[in-house]
Amino acid sequence: MSKIAIFPGSFDPITLGHVSIVKRAASLFDKIIVAIGVNSTKSSMFSVEQRKEWIENIFKDYENIEVETYTGLTINYCKKKGAKYILRGLRTSADFEFERGIGQVNFMMEKEIETVFLLTEAKYSPISSSIVRDVYKNGGDLSKLIPAEVIL
Amino acid sequence: MSKIAIFPGSFDPITLGHVSIVKRAASLFDKIIVAIGVNSTKSSMFSVEQRKEWIENIFKDYENIEVETYTGLTINYCKKKGAKYILRGLRTSADFEFERGIGQVNFMMEKEIETVFLLTEAKYSPISSSIVRDVYKNGGDLSKLIPAEVIL
Amino acid sequence: MSKIAIFPGSFDPITLGHVSIVKRAASLFDKIIVAIGVNSTKSSMFSVEQRKEWIENIFKDYENIEVETYTGLTINYCKKKGAKYILRGLRTSADFEFERGIGQVNFMMEKEIETVFLLTEAKYSPISSSIVRDVYKNGGDLSKLIPAEVIL
Amino acid sequence: MSKIAIFPGSFDPITLGHVSIVKRAASLFDKIIVAIGVNSTKSSMFSVEQRKEWIENIFKDYENIEVETYTGLTINYCKKKGAKYILRGLRTSADFEFERGIGQVNFMMEKEIETVFLLTEAKYSPISSSIVRDVYKNGGDLSKLIPAEVIL
Amino acid sequence: MSKIAIFPGSFDPITLGHVSIVKRAASLFDKIIVAIGVNSTKSSMFSVEQRKEWIENIFKDYENIEVETYTGLTINYCKKKGAKYILRGLRTSADFEFERGIGQVNFMMEKEIETVFLLTEAKYSPISSSIVRDVYKNGGDLSKLIPAEVIL
Amino acid sequence: MSKIAIFPGSFDPITLGHVSIVKRAASLFDKIIVAIGVNSTKSSMFSVEQRKEWIENIFKDYENIEVETYTGLTINYCKKKGAKYILRGLRTSADFEFERGIGQVNFMMEKEIETVFLLTEAKYSPISSSIVRDVYKNGGDLSKLIPAEVIL
Repeated sequence: MSKIAIFPGSFDPITLGHVSIVKRAASLFDKIIVAIGVNSTKSSMFSVEQRKEWIENIFKDYENIEVETYTGLTINYCKKKGAKYILRGLRTSADFEFERGIGQVNFMMEKEIETVFLLTEAKYSPISSSIVRDVYKNGGDLSKLIPAEVIL
Repeated sequence: MSKIAIFPGSFDPITLGHVSIVKRAASLFDKIIVAIGVNSTKSSMFSVEQRKEWIENIFKDYENIEVETYTGLTINYCKKKGAKYILRGLRTSADFEFERGIGQVNFMMEKEIETVFLLTEAKYSPISSSIVRDVYKNGGDLSKLIPAEVIL
Repeated sequence: MSKIAIFPGSFDPITLGHVSIVKRAASLFDKIIVAIGVNSTKSSMFSVEQRKEWIENIFKDYENIEVETYTGLTINYCKKKGAKYILRGLRTSADFEFERGIGQVNFMMEKEIETVFLLTEAKYSPISSSIVRDVYKNGGDLSKLIPAEVIL
Repeated sequence: MSKIAIFPGSFDPITLGHVSIVKRAASLFDKIIVAIGVNSTKSSMFSVEQRKEWIENIFKDYENIEVETYTGLTINYCKKKGAKYILRGLRTSADFEFERGIGQVNFMMEKEIETVFLLTEAKYSPISSSIVRDVYKNGGDLSKLIPAEVIL
Repeated sequence: MSKIAIFPGSFDPITLGHVSIVKRAASLFDKIIVAIGVNSTKSSMFSVEQRKEWIENIFKDYENIEVETYTGLTINYCKKKGAKYILRGLRTSADFEFERGIGQVNFMMEKEIETVFLLTEAKYSPISSSIVRDVYKNGGDLSKLIPAEVIL
Repeated sequence: MSKIAIFPGSFDPITLGHVSIVKRAASLFDKIIVAIGVNSTKSSMFSVEQRKEWIENIFKDYENIEVETYTGLTINYCKKKGAKYILRGLRTSADFEFERGIGQVNFMMEKEIETVFLLTEAKYSPISSSIVRDVYKNGGDLSKLIPAEVIL
């Protein structure tokens, strides 16, 4: 049975930290689906189409990495895709506490799906999409925060 | 003099974690008032009336547990009710940091009122009302998160 | 049935933070036993006798506060004394993480005994017995760290 | 070359904790600019003019403390003012995690600007502008939270 | 190429939390080596032989789980065994901070080896080998802390 | 009056993280004294003389950086040297909690001495002397952890 992992997020926009996690996890799974969660009640800075296109360009040379959008609970989406793993990166202990709550509740609801964590590389650990958006709004230099494929 | 504790919160909705805290604290105090804070500027998913009814049903066999609603500062509400204790549960260190700020400011303003903390049981520690609302919105299984009396 | 709490610790030596917790908790319980844990494998700076005498002097005017020494598991000592509560102070999130582990394991082993936490007052939150010992060894001023009854 | 530090914030309103940080840092720098960040998308409780006036009154006897408003990225504002230092206070580990992200990203973008942190005094560590606003809205006593110059 | 993971630790003794991590990770890897680190300068409560025997008994029905002992740096041991993954469980944010330091330094030294984390199940999160040893020394009930195969 | 800062530590051995903090702080102070705390009850891996020589070599081109050894309380040493500032680096929230305790107690005992913190650069944040010692003992590659002047 193939090992499929979902890498869920808003990716508004995707950062160098996200990209590093997915590339480093690529050999652990048979397939990774970078899954853009679309939440009708939460506004985003960039359109879903644009976010998806950026991510597709970034991973276009990776045969086992796909990009999709989804709505609803992540564990329901996992079941629909036959994915037994949720992939997440960890930067800080605030991240960890947040992820632990989500991950343990997911596990309470669905024992068959595991959340698998990789560490963000030290040099990328201060980067978040929210900091990127803040720098972008104020016209700062984004070259060390996002991949070249994200053209703003 | 009787020992009265306020257990304040939004309870939007009450979770298995909240219920466990109140039941375990019931023998420590002469009376516990589960106090639904009504905040006109913060929207809730469930109406105050519905939240109150659920909580009343949960504790209907506990003689020393009452359910009320209140507005304004929690310490002012405590003084009005003659309560010298605020009861709170602690799940994570993020919880703790948040509660410490509130609790120490309350203590600066009113030395006569103490915040008393119990630990959330390990199995309930990932549950929060906000995770419950998220699972509910997306049609997930709530049976391990909320008591049977909360009928959604 | 009377509400008895154990306040366990090494108290090597007792600090202003410890004293504040016990005094503030005194009206919540019928009796508080300040219990000096004696651990044959852990060396202390001050003798058990001296630590006990200091604590007795501090609380000599409190009718419902006693001082004892004990060995073995704290929950076993609680059962022996008929105490259903363990009292602890919380200063920092590191404290919290440590106490949560102990408290939740105690709860797994003995559901009838609850750990009850009060917040350390903000002004005392940086004080620990280990910092006191370090200042003492180096001849620093201890007057803002320990009660006058601890004569060094 | 003179050592100029920016102390950026919303100061909605300024608290006793903020004031303590700036006064204690005053001798470390040749000039400190208390810089009120004006963010058109974030609403504030008090007007920029009022916040500025309060802060000017508080520091009117400090020759090397100025008060200004700014928009945009803090590091761009620093460059405009010739400031090589950003001054920040640290109260809690949640504060620290937040500040580290901002500070390390600033450092990635501009190696010449350093963020310098002082510790909030223990007695002020529970105070935040958001707690002050909450107490204010509910008519609580603010005298231990904000300086006398902040007249509400 | 086969996916081999090392699960390193002292396992002094192995706990229910450790066992849960390994069993849940068993389908993610082709082989997991539970690797008992032998450190000549750190004393243990139980002998290496005994610890190894317990772990072998626990996993005797899992074809892809092996038990070994090792000395020296974990990443060197990984290279010797052809393992590209280090498996670790995460219980608390204190755990996370500790693991992040080790994991990021390992990654700085050897980019080809990734640390993969699973969350400890909520009900096991308070359990640590050090708490188990403390309960054991004091004659407490260990049945909810360690697997039946660990016979003390 | 000149601004003198003490950068205290064991430096057993000094790491790239320490060096980065001192160099970045060099322009903020008139003089920085890298002060090796000698503690007769705590054993070190490298001799005081060797640690001092390494640090002197690292900073030999910095006119305002000196290296000394000291015993006793850091604040007493500061007073002896006329230093009004203690310089410290912050890597993690565990660091922060530890430093806050020390820093706030120092401030309680001596209001005239401030602890000033800089952030460790993201790429150095996982490095600690204790990890360096562990890698060293096991023959690992130290080139990304310590400066070239530390010859092991």
